[in-house]
Parts: sequence; structure tokens; C-alpha cells
Amino acid sequence: MTPSPLIDGLQYANWSEKIFRQMRQGGVDAVHVTVTYHETFRETVLRIEEWNRRFEQFPDLIFQGRSASDIKVARDTGRTAIFFGSQNPSCMEDDIGLVEILHTLGLRFMQLTYNNQSLLASGCYEAEDTGLTRMGREVVAEMNRVGLVVDMSHSGERSTLDAIEHSSRPIAITHANPHNWHAALRNKSDRVLRALGESGGMLGFSLYPHHLKGGSACLLQDFCDMIARTAALMGPDRIGIGTDLCQDQPDSVVEWMRVGRWTKRIDYGEGSAANAGFPPMPDWFADNRHFAAIRTGLGQAGLSTAEVDGIMGGNWLRFFDQSFGPQSR
Amino acid sequence: MTPSPLIDGLQYANWSEKIFRQMRQGGVDAVHVTVTYHETFRETVLRIEEWNRRFEQFPDLIFQGRSASDIKVARDTGRTAIFFGSQNPSCMEDDIGLVEILHTLGLRFMQLTYNNQSLLASGCYEAEDTGLTRMGREVVAEMNRVGLVVDMSHSGERSTLDAIEHSSRPIAITHANPHNWHAALRNKSDRVLRALGESGGMLGFSLYPHHLKGGSACLLQDFCDMIARTAALMGPDRIGIGTDLCQDQPDSVVEWMRVGRWTKRIDYGEGSAANAGFPPMPDWFADNRHFAAIRTGLGQAGLSTAEVDGIMGGNWLRFFDQSFGPQSR
Repeated sequence: MTPSPLIDGLQYANWSEKIFRQMRQGGVDAVHVTVTYHETFRETVLRIEEWNRRFEQFPDLIFQGRSASDIKVARDTGRTAIFFGSQNPSCMEDDIGLVEILHTLGLRFMQLTYNNQSLLASGCYEAEDTGLTRMGREVVAEMNRVGLVVDMSHSGERSTLDAIEHSSRPIAITHANPHNWHAALRNKSDRVLRALGESGGMLGFSLYPHHLKGGSACLLQDFCDMIARTAALMGPDRIGIGTDLCQDQPDSVVEWMRVGRWTKRIDYGEGSAANAGFPPMPDWFADNRHFAAIRTGLGQAGLSTAEVDGIMGGNWLRFFDQSFGPQSR
Repeated sequence: MTPSPLIDGLQYANWSEKIFRQMRQGGVDAVHVTVTYHETFRETVLRIEEWNRRFEQFPDLIFQGRSASDIKVARDTGRTAIFFGSQNPSCMEDDIGLVEILHTLGLRFMQLTYNNQSLLASGCYEAEDTGLTRMGREVVAEMNRVGLVVDMSHSGERSTLDAIEHSSRPIAITHANPHNWHAALRNKSDRVLRALGESGGMLGFSLYPHHLKGGSACLLQDFCDMIARTAALMGPDRIGIGTDLCQDQPDSVVEWMRVGRWTKRIDYGEGSAANAGFPPMPDWFADNRHFAAIRTGLGQAGLSTAEVDGIMGGNWLRFFDQSFGPQSR
């Protein structure tokens, strides 16, 4: 067991005993997992039911995380705490009362948008970014009240800045990288990153190849050097890992992520017709057993041991502790 | 504050600040409230959302109860703990995974039937009683596992005996009276009551006039003497109060309770065409301020102070403590 916790700020794998065992082999104490994208509330509950079956089936490997204190439970019992999140607000439909219901069911992160305009804000692929909508402002306040973290990973620039300003509690971008390193639409401007850091929010660095300079061929040290520069921009306490690991998923799943039910055509999102499926992961990070390589790379990028401990999990732990409970009055 | 807790095993009122203040005036520490009858899962969630609004609006009067320890919280903070229940399994639809989901949302009691045949068992108004169905046996085991109490208040005789036998944890009949005292279809035979008591289950005595000898004109002492006789039959530790108080409800609600969406005709249930609405309560129990009269009457029926303390809440407290958590392996 490492002296500090190891926490991944986002994964969406085709879950299996193999992956849960890899989490244990890699010493992963907690993972924020995506349970839903375009699913309605009832469909989201079906996804949570599937997780309940996994918790019942593999009680020695995983359990549901609800508060930061569960990370201590995970470390004490040698298991991985699974925290739920949604990548889109479809799960709350048009009903603000579902924010508290979903929090009671364990949801701890919710993106206000997934690429497209939602009822709440604008996605990063829209030509026009409205910022937070009327309902968006109400929902952010309700999320603040109950302890459901606003996640703007797939949102547009203006919407993201709006959310940072309007939210009374720090927000997160659980899985993205700096735009100045790799100019993907999903990556974030220095302006956003600076505002995020100053407001106490968190960025999780993504290992999804479309977010990486050089894609699947991205070098470990290039990735770690980018993290060191971002630590200087945002503060070393404001950053963590959010691998966006989609291990063992068939390509039909990336199609659901991108297309849902909002179009009858294929939208390739970050991919293209020639490269439609999941891209291969960098060879130095294929699964949950490989976090140690990042830890080493961060040290070689000049970060101190305390800074590396924070980035590998200590910062997420502090953020979870501040974020998941009801707002104090 | 009385030395022992005051717990009501069932109410379904038209909730308001007035009623919550009456609970405080009456020193009611906890109430099992019906949140749903024939509602689907999604409709049940809307009912829970309404409760969440009440908890937010009246935090000094009420809060959501989840475990027996919340009764101590209620007494320490001068509030009433509200525990959720369903009078029918409509809320779990045809999906056994919803049992755990509903428990996570706070459901602590679920009737397997409401008068009619359900997917799980037979109601007390059916001509044929199948006992537990195939799905019923599976669902009882799942309710046992997560800590959702089987409630057979509106079930048929054979189904009730089946549930007592099949359930690995004690069950409840939260609101009914002995059939030998008042021969209503909803009241329970000595055979059922004896089996319930021997299995560690609980009966809550109902004050709904259709369950009372003499109806709305029932005398307090007659009611209390019946309780004393039932204490001798079942054991004084196996009984409590379950008023079935439906305060301030319009008659449209009793129609929803009886008819739901299962018929286009009117079914009068325990009433009749000439007496279709809610009957008036006995004059000695109109609302939550009037429990003290029952306490006095039980003493006059010859029950000891310890027995009266148990019936007024101590027995429900012990039952809550044994019933609401996950089953130990």
C-alpha cells in the first residue's frame, strides 16, 4: 500500500472481475465510474441495479463509495471504492427533484452537458455556447445543496466559466487536458484552467488518446511534463488523474456515447469515419495495473513526492471530502 | 418527553405543517408513513421528491428516518423521524433490482399486496389465495437481504402464513386488528396472529374505523381491552400501534387507494356506496395529539407500565433495530 491514496477521477470500462482484480493489483483505492450517459432516470436506475449486482457478486474486491471516509475503508479492507457519476444530465430528465434522488442513490458527479446543448448548458461541440440556462442555474444550486459535483468535462468554454462562477462550491473537470498542449475541442483553455484552480476546483488528466498530444503514440514523459506545467498554472493541489479508461468496451458503446438517441445519423465525435471506434491506449497505460508508471514519470518531471502524492489521489481525497456532503448553511 | 419512545406503525395523511406540529405536540418520535400505493417506480420517486421538499421546508419538525438509531436522534432533537413504506409492490414493478434501489431511497416496509392479487401474493379481497408466487418467494428473500420489511396488512390468510414461514426475518402487519374482535376482511385470524408472534413479527393495532368494533363509535376502553387480550395471545412484545390515520385526506384519495388503475368501475373496498368516503375517526383519536389517551386506556386494561411502554413504541423500536439493516450472513 502506497503512503497516499490512489484515486482515478474517471473510468467507463466494460466491468468484469478481471478489471476489478486489476484495480486491486494496481492498488487503486477509489474510482469515479460513469454509470450513465443518455439514459433516462429509469434507465439510469437499471445501470445502478447492475452495479448493485456487482457489489453483491464481488464484495471482496469492490464496494459503493458514498463519502471520502470510504477511501479509508477501501484502504483498510483492501478493496476499491466505486463512486458513481453521470456524463450528461439525461438522468435527471426535466425534474430538479431528481438531483437529490440521484445523490441518495450515490451519484457524486454529474456533467451538465455531453458535447451537445442540454437543458442546463452548452456542450463543447455546439457552435453557440449559451452559458448556463435558466434551469442550469437552478440545478447547479440544487447540486451544491445536496453535494453532487458539477463536472464540465464535455462543456463549452462559456458554460464552463459560468459554472465555475455560479457554483457556490468548487466544480470539477474530471477528464480533460490543457488545450495548449493538445488542441482538441474537449481540452481546456488556460483561462478555464486558471479559473478552475483559483475557485478550488479540480482537473483530472485524461489518458483517452484523442485528448493526448500524439494520440495513442503519446509518450509517458511528455504527458507527465504537461502535468508539471499545469501544476504551475493551476496549483499542484488542484490536479489529479481522470484516465477516461474505457477498457474492453466494444465500439458499439462509443457510438452510444456519441450519438445516444439525439440523431439517426452517425456522429464521430472526436473520432472520424476512418477512425470510428475506441482508439488504442498508450502502451504505458493499458489498464489499472499501470498507475505506478505515471507516479514515476511525475517524479522525473520534477514534482516533489508530496506533489506527486497529491496528484495520484490526495487531491481527489480532499476534494471528495469537501464536496459529497450536504452544504453547510 | 416520555421515558419510552412513541412510534406509530402507519399513517397516510394529507401532510402539512399543521400535522407535523401536532406530531410534536403529541410527542410522536417516529411514524411509518405510506408514500405509495399503485404508483409505478417513477411515480413513487415523485412522491419521495415531495417528502424531500417537506424535509427541506420543515427541518425543525421532521427528518427522514433510515435506521432505528434515528429514533434517538428524533428524541434528542425534538423532531419526528419519518420512515417510508409502500402499501403495494407496484413501486417495484416487475424488477427485483428495484427492491434494493427502493431501500436505498429509504423504503423500510413494503406490502406484498393491496387487497388484490399482485405479482407476489394474494390480497385479502381475492376469492382465491395463491400464497406466495414464484416471484413473491424471490422478492421476500431479496427484501430479507437488504432490510425491507414484508408487510402483510392487506394480504390474504394463506399468503400471510406463507410470508411468515418463507421470510427468514420477522415480518409485520403494520395496521390491522384481530378478526375475533371485529370480523372485517382486513382483520387477522388468531392463527395468523399466533404465527406472527411466534416468528418474532409485529402487529400494529389500527384505528381506521372499518377495522374497529362499532366503527367510528368504538369505545377507547373496548379497543384497549382488545389489545390486552391480543397481548396474551401474541406476547406483549409483539404488538404496537399502527393508527392508519388518514388525516385531512379528500375522498378522492380513498378512491385512489381502492381503485388505482385496476378497474374503470368504483370499488368501495371496506366502505359501501352509501358510505364511500373516509369514515370519521373515533372521537378519542382524531390526530397525533391523542396518543396519551391510548396509553392511559392500556393501563386501565391491566397492562403493566413496561408492557404499555413497549406497545406505545418500545416494541417497534426493537423491531426497527432488527429489521432495517442488511441481513447478517
